[in-house]
Amino acid sequence: MAELQDILDQIAAEMATRADRGKVADYIPQLARIDPKQFGIAVALPDGSVLSAGDAGTPFSIQSISKVFTLAIALGRLGDQLWRRVGREPSGNPFNSIVQLEQEHGRPRNPFINAGAIAVTDAILEGYEPKEILGELLRFIRLAANDTDIHINKAVAQSEAATGDRNFALAHFMRGFGNLRNSPERALGTYFHQCAVEMTCVQLARAGMFLTNAPGQPRLISVERVRRICAMMMMCGHYDASGDFAFKVGLPGKSGVGGGILMIAPGRASIALWSPGLNARGNSQLGTDAAEILARGTGWSVFSGRH
Amino acid sequence: MAELQDILDQIAAEMATRADRGKVADYIPQLARIDPKQFGIAVALPDGSVLSAGDAGTPFSIQSISKVFTLAIALGRLGDQLWRRVGREPSGNPFNSIVQLEQEHGRPRNPFINAGAIAVTDAILEGYEPKEILGELLRFIRLAANDTDIHINKAVAQSEAATGDRNFALAHFMRGFGNLRNSPERALGTYFHQCAVEMTCVQLARAGMFLTNAPGQPRLISVERVRRICAMMMMCGHYDASGDFAFKVGLPGKSGVGGGILMIAPGRASIALWSPGLNARGNSQLGTDAAEILARGTGWSVFSGRH
Amino acid sequence: MAELQDILDQIAAEMATRADRGKVADYIPQLARIDPKQFGIAVALPDGSVLSAGDAGTPFSIQSISKVFTLAIALGRLGDQLWRRVGREPSGNPFNSIVQLEQEHGRPRNPFINAGAIAVTDAILEGYEPKEILGELLRFIRLAANDTDIHINKAVAQSEAATGDRNFALAHFMRGFGNLRNSPERALGTYFHQCAVEMTCVQLARAGMFLTNAPGQPRLISVERVRRICAMMMMCGHYDASGDFAFKVGLPGKSGVGGGILMIAPGRASIALWSPGLNARGNSQLGTDAAEILARGTGWSVFSGRH
Amino acid sequence: MAELQDILDQIAAEMATRADRGKVADYIPQLARIDPKQFGIAVALPDGSVLSAGDAGTPFSIQSISKVFTLAIALGRLGDQLWRRVGREPSGNPFNSIVQLEQEHGRPRNPFINAGAIAVTDAILEGYEPKEILGELLRFIRLAANDTDIHINKAVAQSEAATGDRNFALAHFMRGFGNLRNSPERALGTYFHQCAVEMTCVQLARAGMFLTNAPGQPRLISVERVRRICAMMMMCGHYDASGDFAFKVGLPGKSGVGGGILMIAPGRASIALWSPGLNARGNSQLGTDAAEILARGTGWSVFSGRH
Repeated sequence: MAELQDILDQIAAEMATRADRGKVADYIPQLARIDPKQFGIAVALPDGSVLSAGDAGTPFSIQSISKVFTLAIALGRLGDQLWRRVGREPSGNPFNSIVQLEQEHGRPRNPFINAGAIAVTDAILEGYEPKEILGELLRFIRLAANDTDIHINKAVAQSEAATGDRNFALAHFMRGFGNLRNSPERALGTYFHQCAVEMTCVQLARAGMFLTNAPGQPRLISVERVRRICAMMMMCGHYDASGDFAFKVGLPGKSGVGGGILMIAPGRASIALWSPGLNARGNSQLGTDAAEILARGTGWSVFSGRH
Repeated sequence: MAELQDILDQIAAEMATRADRGKVADYIPQLARIDPKQFGIAVALPDGSVLSAGDAGTPFSIQSISKVFTLAIALGRLGDQLWRRVGREPSGNPFNSIVQLEQEHGRPRNPFINAGAIAVTDAILEGYEPKEILGELLRFIRLAANDTDIHINKAVAQSEAATGDRNFALAHFMRGFGNLRNSPERALGTYFHQCAVEMTCVQLARAGMFLTNAPGQPRLISVERVRRICAMMMMCGHYDASGDFAFKVGLPGKSGVGGGILMIAPGRASIALWSPGLNARGNSQLGTDAAEILARGTGWSVFSGRH
Repeated sequence: MAELQDILDQIAAEMATRADRGKVADYIPQLARIDPKQFGIAVALPDGSVLSAGDAGTPFSIQSISKVFTLAIALGRLGDQLWRRVGREPSGNPFNSIVQLEQEHGRPRNPFINAGAIAVTDAILEGYEPKEILGELLRFIRLAANDTDIHINKAVAQSEAATGDRNFALAHFMRGFGNLRNSPERALGTYFHQCAVEMTCVQLARAGMFLTNAPGQPRLISVERVRRICAMMMMCGHYDASGDFAFKVGLPGKSGVGGGILMIAPGRASIALWSPGLNARGNSQLGTDAAEILARGTGWSVFSGRH
Repeated sequence: MAELQDILDQIAAEMATRADRGKVADYIPQLARIDPKQFGIAVALPDGSVLSAGDAGTPFSIQSISKVFTLAIALGRLGDQLWRRVGREPSGNPFNSIVQLEQEHGRPRNPFINAGAIAVTDAILEGYEPKEILGELLRFIRLAANDTDIHINKAVAQSEAATGDRNFALAHFMRGFGNLRNSPERALGTYFHQCAVEMTCVQLARAGMFLTNAPGQPRLISVERVRRICAMMMMCGHYDASGDFAFKVGLPGKSGVGGGILMIAPGRASIALWSPGLNARGNSQLGTDAAEILARGTGWSVFSGRH
């Protein structure tokens, strides 16, 4: 795969020259301090190898990318019952919007906007302690990544709790409609910790392999569930820029406010990108650009027709 | 491909037994008369063959499926300039909603909701007569389908004009924001005729082959544009049920209020489904169900990881 | 009433010194040419006298103020049946918003936003020709003002029709919901002419006297209807600045995009103000300021408790 | 005033016969138990007398009527600075809607919807303890009513806190926009206690006299502020039924979910009505009907023109 390594190197080289790197999320103090000059990319392949370039070994806060893992756990636990609590349509609204929640009586549009992810976390908390859930999440991610050195940054979690008024509003609002079983403090306490998982690009790329349905991979969830989670990532993974990502990149992905993106090329590869600066829609600016270059260079778009 | 023919036959047989067939669109009198008991399916393959079952030889009104062809023409003519007139995000709203149009100053969310499709038709009308545009559309579709026996049903077009107040509202609204260059009468006159193209499932399946990027096909538009149109179909092709279609079927598709669905399996096949009854979201009820069964039976979901 | 004349003279003098006079409506070419330096005020009293200052004898386009007269005619003709077609709540939205119209299935919030006024005009058109309705309107206004020299400016009406896309959108939208009986062309043709009535401040002040319920006035409509029309003026007469007008002035009023305001001091006076420049909410900037000064100087606020 | 007493007696008699009495608010358990068969009315006059009928001596939870008193206190403390925190336009939405709050960046439409009232309470809490603020509120009400036997029902306040998710959502949402200085717990703790003040109709009618600007009354706030508070009551006092109340009754009023209404006839009277059953818009059903009958019988509408 020398050619793929060349593509990654070229991408990392080009990203290093970019002046406009977006804006680091400033609403979580712990994230605001991150150096925006960083960029990393890693590609895990079905043969077990991982190619990478740039700062692919630096841990970052995966934030909303964690929603992919909790969705997998929740579907495993609750099956299609989960969809009583949350829809599966793109929202057409920013990630933290509350408007649709009122219009649709407290049922979030999909599991990847904040309200929906909070509902998913609330759903898997039923009958468990937050510690147990967070332990299960870490076990799942570590197993998927085949790496035990993956942890939660508690300072980030606490920092987020202290500034999480919009999320508390969403949680209380859903609870007002009977769509939150735990107290907002408990559900959000778990949610903020889940978002504070830290991983490197290499770890994250490996952890995403179970979503490729590629042959020879450990089967953490069923083939059908993989398809469905990828569909949700394609439709809703980049908030109200999901259409643009599909248009330019053509692969299912999920972004996080920490600047990370997990992207799946079904049957071929799991890709992690990271650069802390965000664009106007709250997705990693360089990560999005790099994803587009990678997709073009590899022809991996699911719409390309190559087999 | 005996196996595929079996799948199609089984689907047609199952659909024939369905009691709940949805509701035929009643707002266009000419469409309201269609017999809801019909169901057809056709699959065009890269080798030039077309397999089919049911009423795959009966012409039906393609309605909004025409938006795929006009988008292809508009991108060919205007290139990325087109995106100044229309966005590429799912709307999260019904097909004829005007709310977002006000909030976003007359720029429709995507080319597949009504407002967006009207803007696309308006864009390609610049410097041309409606007749010329409709002629170009028919030539494009006939060439794609390799079949000259494809026509516009003028009675349907006129029927739609007489009851098209919601569409006139959208057109005037955009014009109030400077996002319609032709008069609403002229733009909608063309639009209603474009929607009134009639095709059989066999014809439509053939006509969609240029969107598969499969080898050996006539190259009507560039590989990159095919990817992008398929991305738009995936994200927005079934209005506010697009997420559900991606979740259950996992293929880019475009539905029409006449009960048709055009669906693309990139690199593999172009599929046409038709049954006149619509579900609550305005998409063919049996067509959607059949699409899900076909995707499961063939493993063609773009998220399946099979190559 | 020497004191009241002094107040009017002081107001006119102060308004003459104002540098920031707002912005003349530019979407109707005929109105865009009006000299913004003009200001007029007139106060009609129960004894039949009219005091005035400034350009109170210059005719201007009454525009939306006409909605008060058509509402009076419609209530006389249809009674409470009218409220099936239009609500009576403030909209909380700009005058030409279409959002609520979609959410509330084509029934406008109140008779003073554009959609509501179009519905009222449509209602009184049933069974009549536009000419008859416009004739009735002119007769009503002339009788109320006791002045036959009041006319419709056809150039303004035509100018408005040529740029009235937002209004055509509203009309088609309502028709799509079955809440417009005439064609949009016919309803709006009448509506644009009704808005193009021209009056001077003196004429308009006189014409408003029937809304004061003051003793000794000609009784054009019942006391109860007067109360109700005044209530609608208070609640909805200044679009999404109605609350502010009530807060600062405390009198029912109705503004027009031509820069006029008709204001009623129940039992005491009918007041007309005019200055062409509009503020950000689309109401006459100097007219609003002058209304506040007048209300403070006279103590005529309905909330003042003076009798 | 024998005649007025007759009107009140007739109203009470008629209300006693009503079968459809609305629905007692059930989201606050303590209020859900109230007997819906009760109805009371009291009218305080400038001469110091109070006429009444029905259950006018039974204490009830004034709930949102308390917002009138806190607004008076806040305007006295902060003056026009208060309007930086909250607008003064009708919302066109239900009392607990969060939609506009998102669209208008955390600034509530007016001081009488829940979000606005919470912002007002938050504003007067700055530099004070909740106990001090609640003490000031009770002193203000007792002084206005000239009655020291007015108290807060702590069980109701606690009951509301336990079920107040929608209000917690509003508070957190505003805090996310920087429009809440205290913690939601502290602001809402105070707010829930303020809403839990209990008064009889006789007490409430007396307490409203300062809003009549009638001669010979204790002057708790300036004449101008009285006008402005009455304007806000007229425009926003009955949530999204304010227009209807103005239309039918024509007097400024404020309703509470406990079934009470405080209504002001400027210069003439302060009126309290109470019946626990609410209509679809959340206002006392019999209270609203009785208000209309009273207004018609007395001719007290501010739009009647009588002096």
